[in-house]
Amino acid sequence: MQKKVAVLGSTGSIGTQTLDVVARHPQRFRVVALAAGSRVTDTIAQALAFEPEIVSCANDADVAALRAALPHRTRIASGPAGLHAVAAESGADVVMAATDGAVAFDAVFAAVERGIRIAVANKELIVAAGELFMAAAARSGAQIVPVDSEHSALFQCLVGEPADRIAAVILTASGGPFCDWEGAAIESASLADALRHPTWLMGPKNTVDSASLMNKGLEVIEASRLFGLPPEKIDVLVHRTSVAHGFVVFTDGNVKAQLAPPDMRLPIGYALAYPDRLADRPYAGALSALGATIEAQHATLGFARPDLERFPCLGLAYEALRRGGTAPAALSAANEIAVAAFVKGAIPFGDIPRVVAGVLAATPDEFLSLASVRAADHRARTLAHTEVEARSLPSTK
Amino acid sequence: MQKKVAVLGSTGSIGTQTLDVVARHPQRFRVVALAAGSRVTDTIAQALAFEPEIVSCANDADVAALRAALPHRTRIASGPAGLHAVAAESGADVVMAATDGAVAFDAVFAAVERGIRIAVANKELIVAAGELFMAAAARSGAQIVPVDSEHSALFQCLVGEPADRIAAVILTASGGPFCDWEGAAIESASLADALRHPTWLMGPKNTVDSASLMNKGLEVIEASRLFGLPPEKIDVLVHRTSVAHGFVVFTDGNVKAQLAPPDMRLPIGYALAYPDRLADRPYAGALSALGATIEAQHATLGFARPDLERFPCLGLAYEALRRGGTAPAALSAANEIAVAAFVKGAIPFGDIPRVVAGVLAATPDEFLSLASVRAADHRARTLAHTEVEARSLPSTK
Repeated sequence: MQKKVAVLGSTGSIGTQTLDVVARHPQRFRVVALAAGSRVTDTIAQALAFEPEIVSCANDADVAALRAALPHRTRIASGPAGLHAVAAESGADVVMAATDGAVAFDAVFAAVERGIRIAVANKELIVAAGELFMAAAARSGAQIVPVDSEHSALFQCLVGEPADRIAAVILTASGGPFCDWEGAAIESASLADALRHPTWLMGPKNTVDSASLMNKGLEVIEASRLFGLPPEKIDVLVHRTSVAHGFVVFTDGNVKAQLAPPDMRLPIGYALAYPDRLADRPYAGALSALGATIEAQHATLGFARPDLERFPCLGLAYEALRRGGTAPAALSAANEIAVAAFVKGAIPFGDIPRVVAGVLAATPDEFLSLASVRAADHRARTLAHTEVEARSLPSTK
Repeated sequence: MQKKVAVLGSTGSIGTQTLDVVARHPQRFRVVALAAGSRVTDTIAQALAFEPEIVSCANDADVAALRAALPHRTRIASGPAGLHAVAAESGADVVMAATDGAVAFDAVFAAVERGIRIAVANKELIVAAGELFMAAAARSGAQIVPVDSEHSALFQCLVGEPADRIAAVILTASGGPFCDWEGAAIESASLADALRHPTWLMGPKNTVDSASLMNKGLEVIEASRLFGLPPEKIDVLVHRTSVAHGFVVFTDGNVKAQLAPPDMRLPIGYALAYPDRLADRPYAGALSALGATIEAQHATLGFARPDLERFPCLGLAYEALRRGGTAPAALSAANEIAVAAFVKGAIPFGDIPRVVAGVLAATPDEFLSLASVRAADHRARTLAHTEVEARSLPSTK
């Protein structure tokens, strides 16, 4: 079933990326309403491409231009009433709240009161009045799904978890361009310095906030409101590579983290598709999944590929898994015998995989059943003993 | 409500740690049955401490010793029938399957067929016959919750997620003691070398398997069975510090990870308490939550604490959060004005927090409402403009 999406702030950075996600998933999403600011040309282009039923602009003066360019059936609106129409009167299943500042406050509040899901990219909304929004959402049943990468990370880690078992949440911070600067140098940093953000491309306000860590401070407040946590349960950790976006520490000592490449379309897609997930990214390997592009960065994070040449056992296990049937049982039993032989000094370490490989090669492909797995276990042990005997070191023969 | 726990392999490493978890949570768990091997003295001590209704030992010859030492009401059993009684006839809500090899195969299968939850620490069980166990569990509704740290990690990351949106899972490997050795040296490694595992303390079989990476191979097969994944969706990544135990890569590009200190009581506690979590660990800070004990290790992982002296904005946000009411709204609005002033060159970067601090200091504590937050926003902007004016650089005055 197609979800109906309304976008507040459609010509901004999050707005355009939201429309990109919708465009890539026409079976799942349909744009029913757009509210933009004063970029009339962009707004018209978006409206012609996505054919929403309602289009709104900030200024009454721009209504005529929209009216002239768009089909007769499109409802044109403007100002606060336009925002309200897009958010609360468009029949949207989900409203992407991606305007800046407080302009869409009332419109989003009205949507929340109607029980409509809000994908919140508008940080100020939650910082300034998050308690009011969350209380209204609790009353109406509206879901508030964050789009900020850190809060999306926490939200994803909390799916399916008992809400009263959060010991703390940790927001990561890239540290910004001044992370390693002396205090005095930070004091007099130039605008050009402040705009050199290491990982994310954002507007100047957000980039300067990243440089001062105010961005992270606002996110601490946002996390408190979204997840109902006191300040002592919200921590910040500098993490230069921005691979991990957030951690949830549970009261049982387990920690969950979310990682993703720095692409806002991921948390946007999550907020739109939740509780489902989109299905458009093929798996490109363990290292690339951890989100960075350079191998060297993974070394920094302490991750590396296993070497199947020096460690053939791992490859043998994959082989047994691919064969299926009783091959895994044979692998496991053969390994048990080989390890026991190594432990008592009968064979060298390097012969463990050779014994296992020999047994696997002699194991027929057969269907898995309670009886066949037992027989395979028994046969593999006998075969492994023979393999061990053939390889035994002179001293133990 | 107390959960009734049966333990197969109670005197082994996982068995004793399971009893330790139960002993720490007497309100939540009660031991109803214990099955041990041939360590009779340990078995008697456990039975006297936990007062289970059924106690079983491996050998018929040991029954008399148990009978003599334990209260009359305790049912004593032995061998396969004893394992069956403990697993399937004890009325347990959850069976910890922590024996080695195939000995408890039938008993665990019987418990699965009765719909009893299995906490699986017995890797061979799932490797050899996981498909049969999972199919029986699907028929009876029994939950199979893994105890292996890597599979517990994946299980925790998959809670609440759509099962058909897994692009891949990644198991981490410490790499074992031979991670950096040449192939020829590995071939002739001694037992003492193989037993030097960098992070986990385990029995010799498991430790040798870690050195050969067969352990990881068996875990690949186990993951395939537990989560219904083909081999190409299961990847292995060497991660020397063993802080992260597993990753789930979703089809939308997001990745979730689980991290924990190398203490088997965490996955044991999780498997017993699931879908709830235990509540016994206080939060000791972001860095310690990431599982390692030395600060240096975190540097390797690329994590560090933020410096509130050089970055006062973060501290100001915490202050606003602690004050609550309209303070967060005032912080956010003041910051907006201060950043705009910095962007147009009116104030130095270091004055951004000073402007915000000035506004916060002048903001009264007041109750949050739709009206008060709007008023606070307006007042904070006016105050911030005054603060900016007072600090403006000569060139822009």
